[in-house]
Amino acid sequence: MLTTQHFSTHSIQLLQRKRPSEDSPPSKGRRVVSHPQHPGQCLSHCPQVVEKCLDLGAASARYVSGSMESTAFAEEVVKEAENTWGGLDMLILNHIGHSFFDFFNGDVDHVRKLMETNFLSYVAMTTSALPMLKESEGSIVVVSSVSGKVASPFTAPYSATKFALEGFYSSLRHEFIIENVNVSITLCILGYINTESAVRAVSHVINETPAPKEECALEIIRSGALRQRELHYPARTVTPTLLLRDLAPEFLDGLIRSNFRVENIKKAPAAQGSGH
Amino acid sequence: MLTTQHFSTHSIQLLQRKRPSEDSPPSKGRRVVSHPQHPGQCLSHCPQVVEKCLDLGAASARYVSGSMESTAFAEEVVKEAENTWGGLDMLILNHIGHSFFDFFNGDVDHVRKLMETNFLSYVAMTTSALPMLKESEGSIVVVSSVSGKVASPFTAPYSATKFALEGFYSSLRHEFIIENVNVSITLCILGYINTESAVRAVSHVINETPAPKEECALEIIRSGALRQRELHYPARTVTPTLLLRDLAPEFLDGLIRSNFRVENIKKAPAAQGSGH
Repeated sequence: MLTTQHFSTHSIQLLQRKRPSEDSPPSKGRRVVSHPQHPGQCLSHCPQVVEKCLDLGAASARYVSGSMESTAFAEEVVKEAENTWGGLDMLILNHIGHSFFDFFNGDVDHVRKLMETNFLSYVAMTTSALPMLKESEGSIVVVSSVSGKVASPFTAPYSATKFALEGFYSSLRHEFIIENVNVSITLCILGYINTESAVRAVSHVINETPAPKEECALEIIRSGALRQRELHYPARTVTPTLLLRDLAPEFLDGLIRSNFRVENIKKAPAAQGSGH
Repeated sequence: MLTTQHFSTHSIQLLQRKRPSEDSPPSKGRRVVSHPQHPGQCLSHCPQVVEKCLDLGAASARYVSGSMESTAFAEEVVKEAENTWGGLDMLILNHIGHSFFDFFNGDVDHVRKLMETNFLSYVAMTTSALPMLKESEGSIVVVSSVSGKVASPFTAPYSATKFALEGFYSSLRHEFIIENVNVSITLCILGYINTESAVRAVSHVINETPAPKEECALEIIRSGALRQRELHYPARTVTPTLLLRDLAPEFLDGLIRSNFRVENIKKAPAAQGSGH
């Protein structure tokens, strides 16, 4: 399993090989491990995460640190998995670049960079990993957001990148089915989760209780293992939102806006030019 | 009115100033015209289009030719409108870059370039035009596609760019409402239209009769003038598709695939690397 994690511009790719067990067929028992590319850039808690994976039964676990702003690095991570294990059964794409939670300030260059990290690096990793995933009849898990289905205010660049993921991967899923490629694609539509970064970014603005991150992580892995088309988590907020978006779009828009404490948004200065 | 048109990598920006009439209030009567930036690059039929606009009652009409692969050029077109007329009341974003209608071949660089033309140049033009549109309480019309709502096979890069437009502009619409910015945003969800380029690209693969382009063009302008949230054209195919996407997504996926004559798709060779 190759999982990307997001820590602003530095993304950590955690690769682990699951210890073979009786209930996992040999072709599905493989998980992939790598080692740090740039130890100096690694975030302090990565060794603990690896240790925890080993404690929980992984045959081995490693991480690679670098910036997913570069699709070259994204491809390098996949190569690392290939070189180390010669195969891959699950690719979980879960990293995002830093964005702001504010009115759009006209910074086109920020949108471009975010697209590189949140979308193009996903496409690059998928392309690189596909031969291995075809061989293992594996799974691609794309972690997206309810903001990738229904846009909210203050997230225009982020929403654009998350919407793009659905457009790309839903088209690819059709092609896999047509070509009899037995690689599943799961799109995870996450609501408000109590990760440290999400709570820090939006708790002062959103009138909602976040869902637990531990259960969320488990649901992401489960949805990939079960080869689900989509995961809605937490379903109690995500599923009704999606049902409303075409049946009553303007009502839903009003509902979304009423969920924000707009007075707590501090307006950022407008960008000078698009920075292209 | 500033309209972008798509002709592969060369995009033509048609700018016209409507002749003031009794039924249009002064602030809405303004339309904007420019002149060719690079006459050598202009496509042969542009002068005829301009002539037709004048015949139909435009006070003046001009065009600017160049490549929308560059957001710098996109901004230049808006500046041209500003310099010539000092204002703008409608921005119709309707250009797309060349893409293929085929299985995705792993060319990440193609996806990146298409995102630049189909999405980032839209954001750049919107940012540049916004001060003028705020002043005129004008309209932004974003021409998208049913492939920007529900993905089909053979359009992964294109779908990604069209989905991105919805994510970005739906978020921006919320922000305009919150800030009391009286600029409307209309998203045009077009089905299969009988433009020369669309028919050439997909008629051998799609089991569907295309809708007339003349009516489509009129509906696009009407939806912007009426400040509609979304246009579905032709409604007979687009609206039911959108209603099914959350109610019965897997049924809809099967229906979409059955609409293609897959045997007529000629498979392209895989890309060598991502070209970054």
